[in-house]
Amino acid sequence: MNATTVKKIIRDIPDFPQKGVIFKDITPILKDPAVYRFVIDTLTGILKPVSFDAIVGIESRGFMFGTALAYQMKKAFVPVRKKGKLPYRTVQMSYALEYGEAVVEMHEDAIKKDDRVVIVDDLLATGGTALAAAQLVEKLGGKVEKYAFVIELLFFKGREKLSAYDVDSLVQF
Amino acid sequence: MNATTVKKIIRDIPDFPQKGVIFKDITPILKDPAVYRFVIDTLTGILKPVSFDAIVGIESRGFMFGTALAYQMKKAFVPVRKKGKLPYRTVQMSYALEYGEAVVEMHEDAIKKDDRVVIVDDLLATGGTALAAAQLVEKLGGKVEKYAFVIELLFFKGREKLSAYDVDSLVQF
Repeated sequence: MNATTVKKIIRDIPDFPQKGVIFKDITPILKDPAVYRFVIDTLTGILKPVSFDAIVGIESRGFMFGTALAYQMKKAFVPVRKKGKLPYRTVQMSYALEYGEAVVEMHEDAIKKDDRVVIVDDLLATGGTALAAAQLVEKLGGKVEKYAFVIELLFFKGREKLSAYDVDSLVQF
Repeated sequence: MNATTVKKIIRDIPDFPQKGVIFKDITPILKDPAVYRFVIDTLTGILKPVSFDAIVGIESRGFMFGTALAYQMKKAFVPVRKKGKLPYRTVQMSYALEYGEAVVEMHEDAIKKDDRVVIVDDLLATGGTALAAAQLVEKLGGKVEKYAFVIELLFFKGREKLSAYDVDSLVQF
């Protein structure tokens, strides 16, 4: 088992969620316990040298990797969600979409001053949501020590948008 | 650490998502690594006597408990999502809401004939979504061996709706 196994099991879905987009479907990773375990354990290895308090996971595929990592590494898990989903008081951050903008939120008591966090998501494309997640952490006085993605789509140059941070990914397309 | 610790850490949010509803906020569980670990390990204990192949988790708080359980128990994880979120071909099931109805989906290749599954979610209220998840499994020829919930709201009598199944929960209100 290695990163190539993971790369091969990811399924291309043409024209989802809209015409012209080739979506990377990660559900085959979840369906194969050995592959999923390899992904979580490899991300654990990537994060092991980092000193941090909490894993921030981005709705909702970020939850599928971030919570198992938090369990395995005995760290706090903090969800970042789309506007209106989190029940308690929140901080908010908007980010640009191709047309218009979107807003993500985090509970205002999820991170405290000087907390060190890593941000986990399934996929890095343009990095818009990922950057907004870091800005939420920083609004609350926390520090982003690293980003860890399962998939990185190199074409979108998300690393340039996240150039102030340490970024790692398991497989690249 | 016991179920009472978990019960106490769950946060009541009045009037969310609408006036008159008291929402049970599970994010404090995720934020405390010892409590989250206790929840996952207790659910593991509940599921250990059951023979099964896959954990079905319901969007999106079900992902936060189901994926860590799948990791820990070395089982497949299958997401049930709201209509339009899953990228591949799906089976669908509608269920009644207070006003109108909602549709949930599962990938048509997520479960195969005679697969045995357990369904995991954060909360059992009326059981409408939970029952729809079982019906998706059964449409694909699978068998639901058990439901495991973190929270059960007894007032809503969800167990009556799920009376054909084995149902367990960690804390009850």
